[in-house]
Amino acid sequence: MEQFKSLREECYEANMELNALNLVIYTFGNVSAVDRAAGVFAIKPSGVPYEVLKPEDIVILDFDNKLIDGKMRPSSDTRTHAWLYKNWANIGGIAHTHATYSVAWAQAQRDIPIMGTTHADHLTEDIPCAAPMSDELIEGNYEHNTGIQITDCFRERNLDYEEVPMVLLGNHGPFTWGKNAAKAVYHSKVLEEVARMAYLALQINPNAPRLKDALIKKHYERKHGKNAYYGQA
Amino acid sequence: MEQFKSLREECYEANMELNALNLVIYTFGNVSAVDRAAGVFAIKPSGVPYEVLKPEDIVILDFDNKLIDGKMRPSSDTRTHAWLYKNWANIGGIAHTHATYSVAWAQAQRDIPIMGTTHADHLTEDIPCAAPMSDELIEGNYEHNTGIQITDCFRERNLDYEEVPMVLLGNHGPFTWGKNAAKAVYHSKVLEEVARMAYLALQINPNAPRLKDALIKKHYERKHGKNAYYGQA
Amino acid sequence: MEQFKSLREECYEANMELNALNLVIYTFGNVSAVDRAAGVFAIKPSGVPYEVLKPEDIVILDFDNKLIDGKMRPSSDTRTHAWLYKNWANIGGIAHTHATYSVAWAQAQRDIPIMGTTHADHLTEDIPCAAPMSDELIEGNYEHNTGIQITDCFRERNLDYEEVPMVLLGNHGPFTWGKNAAKAVYHSKVLEEVARMAYLALQINPNAPRLKDALIKKHYERKHGKNAYYGQA
Amino acid sequence: MEQFKSLREECYEANMELNALNLVIYTFGNVSAVDRAAGVFAIKPSGVPYEVLKPEDIVILDFDNKLIDGKMRPSSDTRTHAWLYKNWANIGGIAHTHATYSVAWAQAQRDIPIMGTTHADHLTEDIPCAAPMSDELIEGNYEHNTGIQITDCFRERNLDYEEVPMVLLGNHGPFTWGKNAAKAVYHSKVLEEVARMAYLALQINPNAPRLKDALIKKHYERKHGKNAYYGQA
Repeated sequence: MEQFKSLREECYEANMELNALNLVIYTFGNVSAVDRAAGVFAIKPSGVPYEVLKPEDIVILDFDNKLIDGKMRPSSDTRTHAWLYKNWANIGGIAHTHATYSVAWAQAQRDIPIMGTTHADHLTEDIPCAAPMSDELIEGNYEHNTGIQITDCFRERNLDYEEVPMVLLGNHGPFTWGKNAAKAVYHSKVLEEVARMAYLALQINPNAPRLKDALIKKHYERKHGKNAYYGQA
Repeated sequence: MEQFKSLREECYEANMELNALNLVIYTFGNVSAVDRAAGVFAIKPSGVPYEVLKPEDIVILDFDNKLIDGKMRPSSDTRTHAWLYKNWANIGGIAHTHATYSVAWAQAQRDIPIMGTTHADHLTEDIPCAAPMSDELIEGNYEHNTGIQITDCFRERNLDYEEVPMVLLGNHGPFTWGKNAAKAVYHSKVLEEVARMAYLALQINPNAPRLKDALIKKHYERKHGKNAYYGQA
Repeated sequence: MEQFKSLREECYEANMELNALNLVIYTFGNVSAVDRAAGVFAIKPSGVPYEVLKPEDIVILDFDNKLIDGKMRPSSDTRTHAWLYKNWANIGGIAHTHATYSVAWAQAQRDIPIMGTTHADHLTEDIPCAAPMSDELIEGNYEHNTGIQITDCFRERNLDYEEVPMVLLGNHGPFTWGKNAAKAVYHSKVLEEVARMAYLALQINPNAPRLKDALIKKHYERKHGKNAYYGQA
Repeated sequence: MEQFKSLREECYEANMELNALNLVIYTFGNVSAVDRAAGVFAIKPSGVPYEVLKPEDIVILDFDNKLIDGKMRPSSDTRTHAWLYKNWANIGGIAHTHATYSVAWAQAQRDIPIMGTTHADHLTEDIPCAAPMSDELIEGNYEHNTGIQITDCFRERNLDYEEVPMVLLGNHGPFTWGKNAAKAVYHSKVLEEVARMAYLALQINPNAPRLKDALIKKHYERKHGKNAYYGQA
């Protein structure tokens, strides 16, 4: 359908970028993009290699997971995306990867502590690692429940999804989001780099302290605060 | 011989893919492909660099290691491949590498524990590391005995080679297999990535738990079970 | 302005080199170049991706941070560069990155010990890691104070900026400098490599000794001493 | 001189290969090639970047370090090469790098233990790490004494340079050699990979055993023994 052309393009470009940034091997990842006005989102089809992926392969669904347009089966993680779009009104794109260092922290079941300004340039909190789901939830509607697992984690920890645009799922891997699909992919790359830096810093000094509050605040504010002075006006 | 043209092509392409995926340096690896109807397999010639390898260089042998067609000497690991094809009726391709993280676990003589869904998406067991052979077997028909070492390991541990398409040989490195040569190479890449993730996770948290059973089952089933919903129908 | 054309070119080339050497992702870094005669320096504009950066985007400022020429907002770290140019009369270029291993040591709040001749070929001291600033300084003129933090660190430790062309800022990352912008970038690359070697050496042997004085002296002198015999005359 | 054209070509190609294999950054390495009949060797000029290096830049010297032909200053490590050619009659090429994992072991002042068949495919001994020189030797004819340090290490440990084509110099880095310059570079690459595998294996299992003697012998013999069956006849 001509109607979803630009949404498909946005989604396609973001998926290809995930691959170009070396955040996935084979088909171990997916990105979606939302059209809030139309109440739909576009997502990568399941198991299609990046080398053959075309914009027209992108699948369109609504937030209740109903197929709206497209000939292929959507990503197996689609219900997680749908839940997040439905519950978090201000996200425009979502990315999921199995990037190495992000997955390592998820497998270690550890939050990534905020240890430097690279981290603070993007968020002011430790990156949360949500605990694995209960067996009942896993055996139920798994991908839907994965979405609930994420929103529950943020509610319980009192985190704001607009301030913390990323999460690790224990034993699984990262989901990241942003105001559009490209920004979601950007956050996947930043998370992978921050995960690697924190890993190395703790190998060098297991007692290395968290970043002090004044630096957390300063770096975040200069990029995202009211008087931000990073980037072009 | 024209007869083996497509088998040679399959074998050649899979060997080149091994190299393209950065799983080998120099000639530290080999892939074979089987033709069950003809009772033969095709394998990389020994010590030939990938830059000069041509499809017609690929050597054809039967499962008793008899040369059927080809002018070059086959891989020094040929007898291991022959033994596996002879004993495991449903494998169509085999790959052997000295990929870094896979070898590191083999040198550490440790099974790779199942710690995440990246692993569970492909198999439900720890990746077995077979103990080094006895001195008698090493001094005997070494590569043939390497095959026996692999099948013995699977028999003793009660593993199904169709469910666990990979093994580490203690102090040596990985062998992987699949329904065809491309799938065998795919499993070599997955193994290397899983080996790296498990290594990093245990560096971050030496007490990180194995993946819980419900998640192992869920991830494997959604990709490989009766009602699998990963990929295109 | 035609006047600053070659200064802009030098600055542009050095910034592009930072990217080509894999020392930055996205816009996580900046390089500046000075014109001592004119009393100005050129610096990367803030937040502009390398793929779209052009020489004419480079911003020209004086050492008191006054904009002299250019249409874009300069790097958010500009005041740090200005302070260093103002205080250290013999540096011609400055580079700042968030390169992985350099940042890891900064986050670990550890000096990088001199452990080998790769390090001694470039400097004879441990690479200093300046302590994080006091909260007052952070909340004040942060980037200006970052400059002071660097010069204070060198004064307190009695280090010569012409002999030690690099520093780590605790919890942040590296600044490096040199007789021109290209040399500053060169020092960023050397620092990253030395940081990686020291990290690995200490993982292999936590008790590995510092390099002995005679070797420190020998390697440095053969490259930089009065009778240096490295390189072409 | 036309006389040394092919020797210069061999040396040039091997130096460029060192760079292509990612074993050096900038000019941190050098390769030489010998002409035994003429009693001379060819070596990289000092400090010349690979991007501008040309075959005619290669310098020709005799084994007493006398310049025979060439307009540039030879590598600062030339006297080490000369000493090895003079003392070890059967080597045809020498390579020196500051490759990361090789240097890390040198800085850790540890021999690299033989832990797997990748190592045993090339040599049957631990890779020796020569102790740093005494201060007198460092302050004397340093690069000449570096050569003596290597041959002394082999004599004291009763190692055969034809069987063990590589050494680590404590706190410095690796030297490797072979029947020609290309083979010397090959050994630098193998060493770097073996160094990385041993590092990772010991991180995974600090008590991982050395490779058993029967496997050491088997793997080495199948590649290098009287009845070797690796490679093409």
